[in-house]
Parts: sequence; C-alpha cells; structure tokens
Amino acid sequence: MFKDTLEKIVNQTPGGVGVVLMGYDGIAVDQYFLDSGDIDLQLVAVEYSNVVKEIRHTAEVLGTGALQEVTIKTGRYYVVIYALTDEYFVALTLKREGNLGKGRYLVRHNSFSLCQALV
Amino acid sequence: MFKDTLEKIVNQTPGGVGVVLMGYDGIAVDQYFLDSGDIDLQLVAVEYSNVVKEIRHTAEVLGTGALQEVTIKTGRYYVVIYALTDEYFVALTLKREGNLGKGRYLVRHNSFSLCQALV
Repeated sequence: MFKDTLEKIVNQTPGGVGVVLMGYDGIAVDQYFLDSGDIDLQLVAVEYSNVVKEIRHTAEVLGTGALQEVTIKTGRYYVVIYALTDEYFVALTLKREGNLGKGRYLVRHNSFSLCQALV
Repeated sequence: MFKDTLEKIVNQTPGGVGVVLMGYDGIAVDQYFLDSGDIDLQLVAVEYSNVVKEIRHTAEVLGTGALQEVTIKTGRYYVVIYALTDEYFVALTLKREGNLGKGRYLVRHNSFSLCQALV
C-alpha cells in the first residue's frame, strides 16, 4: 500500500538510494532501498528518527510552529525528512551528486497519498 | 570582528530575523538579532545547538560524512545551520515568507570570512 509510492520517490530521484516511512519512535512502517553499498539505510533512518524527534520537540518548546521539513547535507549524502502526521515522517536519502530539488519535490508531491494511506 | 558579517547576513536576507555564531556546546561567540517579536532567538540558537550536536554525532556514527548544512522548516520559521569548523556553526533564522535561498546563499558566501575570523 505504501511500497509503490516509496519506489516511485526513489526511482524518480536522480541519486536516490532509499526512502523510509517511519514513526517518531524509530519503527519503520515501510521502506524501499536500492543497493546502497556501504551505508546501512535502515540504521540511517532509525538514527535520524531521534534527530527528528529532538527537532520536533525543540520547535514545540520554542513556539516556532510545528516541524514540517528538514534537509541535512553531509559529506556524502543528503537526507530529506518530511513530517506527514503527528506520528509519522518520511525520510529520503540521496547521494550528494544527486538532485536534491527533485527529491524534495517528489517527497512533498507524494506526501498527500502517503498521508491518505496512513489513516 | 564578526558583527559586521552577521549584520550583513541578516540585513540582506529578506525576512531575516537573526543570526548567531555559536559553539556546539551552546555558547554563542557573537550574534545579531532584529526585533523578532515573540520568539527568543537566543534560546532558539541554544536549543538548536543540541539538535546540531545530535545530527553531527549521527553523521559520524553512520559514516555518511561530516555534517555541512541543515535546513529546518517549521510552521513559522526557517532555520539554516551551517558548520564552520569542528567547534563552531552559524545559525540564521528567517520568517517563512522570507527568502530561504538568499539566506542560505549569504550564509555560505560569508562562511569563509567567519572561518578566517575564528582562527
């Protein structure tokens, strides 16, 4: 029910390596990974769920409005995190030489159908 | 020594409300805030330093390369965080109706002079 959308996001993103639909508790609902070589994308998603939880908490404490999106750029990857509901988010990992703008667009564009499938 | 650069970043960013040059320990080196109304930008920076520390740690653990940049979008603000050195980062807060692209460009563009002033 989620797989088709997740596959589409990764396959249509140049440089896309994987996407995961996950609860803020770090438990994945569904995921789609290409062969990512040397990084453990499941672990990436779990680790980033802690980061997202921290950012969400921070945004609430500060009254800056609910967390919507986080983009992280590291030496080798981009991670795009998009809040879907109060309980779930989606995280796309792509290579630095990939197309961040396209990946972010696809995550946003497919967020509605992921939300609909979640409820 | 940092103030001119920090002022320039905020004043040239449409919707810019404040910028802080900060250690990962949450202690600010210098900052420049416009009247931001209802949010405490000093507190925003301190809270986000915890987030950045968490992301940096995560990136190291996962071997995804060093953290370079984080963009956070909440209901009312954007926060652009840019890693300058192993010890310091700069964080720009701007309103949602502001120009994120211009703000991010100005942070990147001025990062070299901030780094030079730090060492």
